[in-house]
Amino acid sequence: MTTLGEIAAVADACLQGCDAATVIVGVAPLHRAEPGHLSFLTHPRYRAYLDATRATAVILSPKDAANCPTPAVVAANPHVAYARAAALFAPVAEPRRGIHGTAWVSPDAHVAADTWIGPHCAVEAGAVIETGVVMGPGCVIGEHAIIGAGSRLVARVTVCHRVRLGQRVLVHPGAVIGSDGFGLALSSEGRWLKVPQLGSVLIGDDVEIGANTTIDRGALENTVIEDGVKLDNQIQIAHNVHIGAHSALAGCVGIAGSARIGRHCMLGGGVGIAGHLEIADHVQITGMSLVTQSITESGVYSSGLAVEPNRVWNKISARLRRLDEMFRRLAALEKKSNRDGAL
Amino acid sequence: MTTLGEIAAVADACLQGCDAATVIVGVAPLHRAEPGHLSFLTHPRYRAYLDATRATAVILSPKDAANCPTPAVVAANPHVAYARAAALFAPVAEPRRGIHGTAWVSPDAHVAADTWIGPHCAVEAGAVIETGVVMGPGCVIGEHAIIGAGSRLVARVTVCHRVRLGQRVLVHPGAVIGSDGFGLALSSEGRWLKVPQLGSVLIGDDVEIGANTTIDRGALENTVIEDGVKLDNQIQIAHNVHIGAHSALAGCVGIAGSARIGRHCMLGGGVGIAGHLEIADHVQITGMSLVTQSITESGVYSSGLAVEPNRVWNKISARLRRLDEMFRRLAALEKKSNRDGAL
Amino acid sequence: MTTLGEIAAVADACLQGCDAATVIVGVAPLHRAEPGHLSFLTHPRYRAYLDATRATAVILSPKDAANCPTPAVVAANPHVAYARAAALFAPVAEPRRGIHGTAWVSPDAHVAADTWIGPHCAVEAGAVIETGVVMGPGCVIGEHAIIGAGSRLVARVTVCHRVRLGQRVLVHPGAVIGSDGFGLALSSEGRWLKVPQLGSVLIGDDVEIGANTTIDRGALENTVIEDGVKLDNQIQIAHNVHIGAHSALAGCVGIAGSARIGRHCMLGGGVGIAGHLEIADHVQITGMSLVTQSITESGVYSSGLAVEPNRVWNKISARLRRLDEMFRRLAALEKKSNRDGAL
Repeated sequence: MTTLGEIAAVADACLQGCDAATVIVGVAPLHRAEPGHLSFLTHPRYRAYLDATRATAVILSPKDAANCPTPAVVAANPHVAYARAAALFAPVAEPRRGIHGTAWVSPDAHVAADTWIGPHCAVEAGAVIETGVVMGPGCVIGEHAIIGAGSRLVARVTVCHRVRLGQRVLVHPGAVIGSDGFGLALSSEGRWLKVPQLGSVLIGDDVEIGANTTIDRGALENTVIEDGVKLDNQIQIAHNVHIGAHSALAGCVGIAGSARIGRHCMLGGGVGIAGHLEIADHVQITGMSLVTQSITESGVYSSGLAVEPNRVWNKISARLRRLDEMFRRLAALEKKSNRDGAL
Repeated sequence: MTTLGEIAAVADACLQGCDAATVIVGVAPLHRAEPGHLSFLTHPRYRAYLDATRATAVILSPKDAANCPTPAVVAANPHVAYARAAALFAPVAEPRRGIHGTAWVSPDAHVAADTWIGPHCAVEAGAVIETGVVMGPGCVIGEHAIIGAGSRLVARVTVCHRVRLGQRVLVHPGAVIGSDGFGLALSSEGRWLKVPQLGSVLIGDDVEIGANTTIDRGALENTVIEDGVKLDNQIQIAHNVHIGAHSALAGCVGIAGSARIGRHCMLGGGVGIAGHLEIADHVQITGMSLVTQSITESGVYSSGLAVEPNRVWNKISARLRRLDEMFRRLAALEKKSNRDGAL
Repeated sequence: MTTLGEIAAVADACLQGCDAATVIVGVAPLHRAEPGHLSFLTHPRYRAYLDATRATAVILSPKDAANCPTPAVVAANPHVAYARAAALFAPVAEPRRGIHGTAWVSPDAHVAADTWIGPHCAVEAGAVIETGVVMGPGCVIGEHAIIGAGSRLVARVTVCHRVRLGQRVLVHPGAVIGSDGFGLALSSEGRWLKVPQLGSVLIGDDVEIGANTTIDRGALENTVIEDGVKLDNQIQIAHNVHIGAHSALAGCVGIAGSARIGRHCMLGGGVGIAGHLEIADHVQITGMSLVTQSITESGVYSSGLAVEPNRVWNKISARLRRLDEMFRRLAALEKKSNRDGAL
């Protein structure tokens, strides 16, 4: 429970047509809100819901505030304002401190006093757990790994040896940081020999890593994830990838070895990035696209193909395979037409 | 070990040319079966194996039974009949009850008496484990989560706080249910601010969730998986997705936020569904297709492209990028042809 | 620390312009190497760095050795030579033996004396852990599973009941081996009935399995991964897949049920293979391609499409959907042209 005044303060917003003392008991979407709820309009697709909403107040932009039928919490960036306001309603986890009785911590690990090591965690020799770190059940921290101050590993996170996490890193269940890169050398008999992966992983500050995402250690140099990067679930980051600060990658993205992603990039779900290339800053790749060459200009890039009814698609696919023939037939027609000339 | 009579009973089938008392010791494919084995014909691709099979009896359709050289267990739906018969040969796990000595269960959790909490499980405060639940090693159940009666978490499953599983839910190792949705707000300085995910996940009855599949909690409202849905491995379900009853999703499908999938849908492996769209009931999407807009008509939809030899594909890909030019050249030829007219 | 002589010996290489007694303290890439470092040239893209390198010696091919400005370690296969040399610098894990106090091992399991069962492992009844096996924290070994001699499960690996791993298998964190195949039978009411998965998984010798990769058990017969196969992270292998010896699959590959991959194949990242088909030996599929039919000839196959700027791609995509119309217009023009004939 909070007040509109407190919400306006954390959200850096102005109140319009409402009182700072008004009590707000929760947050809800426009079409579900009841009196006592705060709601929000952050996308045009929901504008239609505004007129009928029963919310006590609505976060929105100055432009939308002009015609707003309800009391408003007016913010230049309503989405950011909503994020800040919603944080007031997030469950406050009681800060636990200590090491759970079922956890195992090596006597040669260094664990700050005001941390929480949850049930069935394992912390190996030489690992450093900095102040304010919270580790849920089942986390595994390898030898000489460093978990930076204020970081949170929700549960079942594996941090392999010598990996470094910065401050305030949030890692969701099942993520693996520092598994071996996929390094193989092909012998003359056609057998694969493992190339030892001697590098590590460096994760910056304020990074978020999604559930079951995997980030491999480098072959010699490190795999690097810069400050403020946000990784969704089921992402695969190969060895020696370097992701620039404040880039965001949606679910199921796969990045091959030694690719370099710029700052402030946005990769849509299922995007594939080939290895040994470089993507500039401020590049956006739409979902399920494939990048095989370096991108030097900021902008939006795509190669996903959306569905058609199956019969239609089968025809398109069949015609696609005859494109070469079609070009040749077109060229032949043009040649004939030029030869025959105008009448 | 069982008899053809018992098999016919559970499989709702008729015996043809065989005795109900005949003993069956196991199940095998047609080309591997020995006397004493039950086999099955559920797809035309295996019809050729029927003549030479040494199986004691074969489950098949009335149509195939007409020409069947072996004793038959005749069922209208042979695949369903096989599923029921095969269950007689599945290893019967001795029902374990209790809490393993290495597990940790919060004194404020509510665990029914006839459940099994396996080695190294962690069950947090307020969690409810209903009657008949079986939890293999290493499962993590968050605060106030509810695991419905008869559900089974094979091993290493993470169920986050406040998530609700219905009855008879089967979850395979490594799955994560209730991780934070990928909610981010972009500030004016180009930094991402986390949007707290205040919703939860509701899983219906008789749902099956594959290994390493991830299902995110909702931003405000819940992510919902209805009764009877079957999810394969490595699927990613984003926040506020709603999947209709009895839909089946093959491995590696990714569904973006707020997408709504109808009932009785089938999504092939690697399919990508964009967010904020709606797919009708009885829609089938073939493997590796991308859906970017709502689908209102039931039917089959595709956009996957199958391989060609690399040299052939490179030509196709190069021609594809010149399609615009090709259309213009075609139009120019048509214009010229119309102008020149018929002779 | 080692010497060039020892490096030449393990790498089966010759020294050129340097002394066998020269001490080498580490390995580094050409552009980062300092005196005392060994470096390597295994790809033309780095040739330019050779001239300025400060490395004490460089592993390279006889062809590159001809013009090498530095002392050289000359090997017919520099990549393999590097792999062997780098192994001298991999951290030597002190061989731990025994069962950690927090692990649980069934009294009915069979664990060889010289193995290491790490913190919070669970080993079920009838499981066999052979000599020299090392299991990191949090591994789960199901009933009657067999872990072959010299294998290593890094951490949090799940091996389900009756699965067999060969010798010297290396499994990275989060992998799941032996989860149920996605076997479902569709009833007449449109509900899915689970088909029990009665087979298992057989993993050969010297196989490597990446982080969070999932390999399902077979429906009746086994899922088979032959000797020397290398699987990257986040790969999904469905039931009854058979992968031939020494094939390598990059991250996020998905293979559907009963597909058979030949020996010495290479699958790029994100490749999708449909079920019930067969791929010959020595086949290479480039990244994000889709294979829907059997491939009988060795060679390289592709169907990935690389990005264009979004506006360009939207035009391509729009034209693609009108390909059928284009072919008809082309055919009409040709017909008209033939009718009008030559002048």
